[in-house]
Amino acid sequence: MKKLRVALVGNGNTAWHYAQLISQLPHVTLWSAGRDAQQTAQFASNVGAHHNCTLPNLPTDLDLYILAITDDALPEAASQLGQVRGLVVHTSGFVNMDVLKPLPRIGVLYPLQTLTKGTPIAAEKIPLLVEAAIIADTVFLLQLAQLLVLQVFEVSSAERKRLHVAAVFANNFTNHLMGKSLELLEPTGLPPQILHPLMEETLRKALVLGPELAQTGPAKRGDHRTMEGHKLLLNPADAALYQILSNSIQKLYEGKL
Amino acid sequence: MKKLRVALVGNGNTAWHYAQLISQLPHVTLWSAGRDAQQTAQFASNVGAHHNCTLPNLPTDLDLYILAITDDALPEAASQLGQVRGLVVHTSGFVNMDVLKPLPRIGVLYPLQTLTKGTPIAAEKIPLLVEAAIIADTVFLLQLAQLLVLQVFEVSSAERKRLHVAAVFANNFTNHLMGKSLELLEPTGLPPQILHPLMEETLRKALVLGPELAQTGPAKRGDHRTMEGHKLLLNPADAALYQILSNSIQKLYEGKL
Repeated sequence: MKKLRVALVGNGNTAWHYAQLISQLPHVTLWSAGRDAQQTAQFASNVGAHHNCTLPNLPTDLDLYILAITDDALPEAASQLGQVRGLVVHTSGFVNMDVLKPLPRIGVLYPLQTLTKGTPIAAEKIPLLVEAAIIADTVFLLQLAQLLVLQVFEVSSAERKRLHVAAVFANNFTNHLMGKSLELLEPTGLPPQILHPLMEETLRKALVLGPELAQTGPAKRGDHRTMEGHKLLLNPADAALYQILSNSIQKLYEGKL
Repeated sequence: MKKLRVALVGNGNTAWHYAQLISQLPHVTLWSAGRDAQQTAQFASNVGAHHNCTLPNLPTDLDLYILAITDDALPEAASQLGQVRGLVVHTSGFVNMDVLKPLPRIGVLYPLQTLTKGTPIAAEKIPLLVEAAIIADTVFLLQLAQLLVLQVFEVSSAERKRLHVAAVFANNFTNHLMGKSLELLEPTGLPPQILHPLMEETLRKALVLGPELAQTGPAKRGDHRTMEGHKLLLNPADAALYQILSNSIQKLYEGKL
């Protein structure tokens, strides 16, 4: 069986997770590439890549080049891979596939997950969103992604951008509000664990019922007295945040109660 | 062994869960009470209460009266229990214990959880916050609560109010943002399940690392180009929500990166 030859560019969170996923495949040779030769060698050794080099020194005839680097670094990396004939994909949620032009075969392999270097995530917990400029590459990426993870979707650049914003709401913003919640707890001296069951049940209900049915609280009920009382306990910035979130909830349930 | 004689007033979400918890105790006789005799009889039958009656007809010498009713209904209920010599507690997060005055023995038994009638929650997932006006009742409530659940804390009315606001952030607001996230997904036609692994991992990381260390995203990085691009995909109200949440995140990490 012919070995799949893959280059993984970058040594951050996303590159680390792609290395974990790809090294599960039985017939693959993995190159690790980056700007800095020493860092790249270190990363290659950590993840068990077979070869490592700087970006311009990568072989030009590999099957797949995965650019797991920051959005801003993509144009330069694409130009350094100018001679490559294989498929080059980036892993960004909010950058058009076209950033890789004029390379002949381009695509995207975006993991819809919050990834932390060194903390493995079960493959079924990483949905992969696939896009490619030509149909043969789309088919190849879909097949490859299905070997790596459980949930695979073909998603256009425009749709992927919507998902990237959705991920900011589902991850960045909910995490921040959990932080605010624990910050409010601090002066009481009670342990953070007192709020953990509520956080767990909040997610469970949202997943089972859907957030619209799971919603409770003074904003949904239109209980203005409680909302005013709550705001008196908050500093001005958090009270403003409380108000705009409550308005947003009230708008959703207006006329629905 | 003397039986504990408990009256549970109300037939909503909280009353249902207290009935589940209390009926686990080996030596208890449970009264169910409410405004409406027929609804109360129905509820009593559902939860297996031994007796049921309207509020003014409750025996005045029970050990404990749990008022699991809306905040607004508390003053009237307290006045209807004017002859009671036992301990009367309410279950509200944001109402002072003193609302039950001039009853002689008063307290609070507040479950820090989002409760849905008919959906049992494991007892270890319901922290109970206890308060009472006299020390003997505090000791009694702490001991009883420890028989019912895993996490029990003595918490003053002022601290409990902070926790109630904290719960709005941890539950109401995060649930609403998960809803916004799924709302953004809708036009793509992709299934809601595509966002579930991210939501699960967001909570897991927040619980393990704490939200401050778990935070990622454009606001934390100060990546204004991505934030502006995100807002272009949102309607004006959601863009305003995005901005104030991003400002709040940026404020937290200013000078910390």
